[in-house]
Amino acid sequence: MENRHGLILVNTGNGKGKTTAALGLGLRAWGQGFKVLIIQFIKGSWKYGELKTAEALGPNFVMRQMGEGFVRNANEDAMADHRHAAEEALAMARKEIVSNQWDMIILDEINYAVKFGVISLEAVLELLEDKPSALHLVLTGRDVRPEIIDKADLVTEMKEIKHPYKKGIKAQKGIEF
Amino acid sequence: MENRHGLILVNTGNGKGKTTAALGLGLRAWGQGFKVLIIQFIKGSWKYGELKTAEALGPNFVMRQMGEGFVRNANEDAMADHRHAAEEALAMARKEIVSNQWDMIILDEINYAVKFGVISLEAVLELLEDKPSALHLVLTGRDVRPEIIDKADLVTEMKEIKHPYKKGIKAQKGIEF
Repeated sequence: MENRHGLILVNTGNGKGKTTAALGLGLRAWGQGFKVLIIQFIKGSWKYGELKTAEALGPNFVMRQMGEGFVRNANEDAMADHRHAAEEALAMARKEIVSNQWDMIILDEINYAVKFGVISLEAVLELLEDKPSALHLVLTGRDVRPEIIDKADLVTEMKEIKHPYKKGIKAQKGIEF
Repeated sequence: MENRHGLILVNTGNGKGKTTAALGLGLRAWGQGFKVLIIQFIKGSWKYGELKTAEALGPNFVMRQMGEGFVRNANEDAMADHRHAAEEALAMARKEIVSNQWDMIILDEINYAVKFGVISLEAVLELLEDKPSALHLVLTGRDVRPEIIDKADLVTEMKEIKHPYKKGIKAQKGIEF
C-alpha cells in the first residue's frame, strides 16, 4: 500500500445524501483501483439499485448487509435482537478494519446505531483508534456524537432544505431505492 | 418508460458531497436499469476515479466533461471563453433533456455556473420548465438561487463542519480525486 494518509470522514445531518455520498465516494475510490467494503449497520438503508451496482463492480467493491431494520418503539425482545445484530456488525467491522485488506471501509448508519443505543460510543471510538493509518474510514448516520467529530478529519452535515414527501409525492424508483 | 414522477433534486451548500452524492444517486439509478447522463458545467470537478468508474459501467452511464475550469479573477477574454463553453454545455443539456432518451440527467456545478455569471438563471429555469415529466434532473453546486429551489422537489444543503485541509493534510487519492 502506498504511503497514504487515511482519513476519517463523517456524513451526518437530517437530510438526504449521507449514504448516497458515501456510495459515491466508494465508487470514486474503486475507480482509482481501491478495494472498498461497505458494512451496513441498519438493515434496509441499502436498496436494490446500489446492491445491483455493487454486484456489477466485482470483488473490489463489497457490500455486507448486517444489522436489523429500524423499528419505532421496539420492545425489549426486539431491542435484544437489534443489539445482537449490531454487535455482529461491529465485530465484523473490527476484523476487517484491522485486517489491512481494504483501502476504504464505509460504516453505514453506524452513527445512528449509537444513537439508537445498540452499540456503544466507546466501541466506535476504539475502532477509530485501531484504524490502520492508510485506511479511509467513512461513518454515516444522523446525530453523530461530538466525540466522533473530534476524531474525524472531514465532517459534512447534510441538511434538508426541501423534501418532496411534504408535497405528497411518493418515493421514486432510482431515487429512493 | 413507466409512469414515473421525475423529480428535480438540488445538492447545494459549502461542504463536500454535492457532486459525490449526485454520483451515488446516478449509480443507484443505473443499478435500477436507468440510463444516466452527467454533464459537467465546470471542468475539473470530475476526477480520474469517477471517470474510470463511468467507463466501466458501459453505455447506460455517460459522463460529458464540458465547460472550462474555474479561475479566480478571470479577465475579459477568459470570461468570454467561459461563457462560450458554458453555452455549449447548456445547449447540450437542453438537447439531451428534451430528447427523452435518459431517465436521469445530472447537471453538475450548474448552480455555480449561474453564480459565476457564465449562464443565466433564466436559461436554467427554462430547462426545468421543459423537463419531460418522467425525467429525474439533479442540479449541483453551491449558492443555488432561490428561484431554482422554488421549482425543486428535494433540496439538500451540504454543510462543512470540519475539513482536513484546515489541519494541513493534503488532498488524498480516492477521496478528492
